[in-house]
Amino acid sequence: MTQFNNATVIKKANVYFDGKVTSRTVLLPDGSKKTLGIMLPGEYEFGTDLKEVMEILAGDLKVQLPGSEEWLEIKESGEFTVPARSKFKLQVAQVTDYCCSYIAD
Amino acid sequence: MTQFNNATVIKKANVYFDGKVTSRTVLLPDGSKKTLGIMLPGEYEFGTDLKEVMEILAGDLKVQLPGSEEWLEIKESGEFTVPARSKFKLQVAQVTDYCCSYIAD
Repeated sequence: MTQFNNATVIKKANVYFDGKVTSRTVLLPDGSKKTLGIMLPGEYEFGTDLKEVMEILAGDLKVQLPGSEEWLEIKESGEFTVPARSKFKLQVAQVTDYCCSYIAD
Repeated sequence: MTQFNNATVIKKANVYFDGKVTSRTVLLPDGSKKTLGIMLPGEYEFGTDLKEVMEILAGDLKVQLPGSEEWLEIKESGEFTVPARSKFKLQVAQVTDYCCSYIAD
């Protein structure tokens, strides 16, 4: 799927880490929520509220999932899932374009 | 208007200047096109194809419109219009959140 149809798009951006991570919120007709975001190179830690599925559309990064010592590398495209109410770390090496889906348990 | 309804959102980001300027394309039911973007601090020159109305949603920047020697400063919010097939320059001092509307003449 290369586009979302019949979507509601929140105009104002979500801005984190001095703008090195930004996203826009997209609400779909089925009630689900996604954010389309950009991460510039850097190291970040995020916390989740809901479960999150992070689809990488372009970029180069490593992710450390909660409870893991390992860093998973993703180049160009890939996906990882983060449990609800947890923290994960990212090392972003190249500008990364992502789509995050929020999943109610 | 704080959101767009019944919109088509192109998933992949538009990326310029090594990711210091990025945007997402939103197509509205009336056939019009907008981009929702973020500019990090820096100096940029852009060229237009169609006429563009740039609405600043947050940020701090100066714009030099085509044919002008003056720099117009915008803080927090504002708007400027750039003619079709022209170039304009920006000096972005703080992370800037914008909505660009493309107007067919």
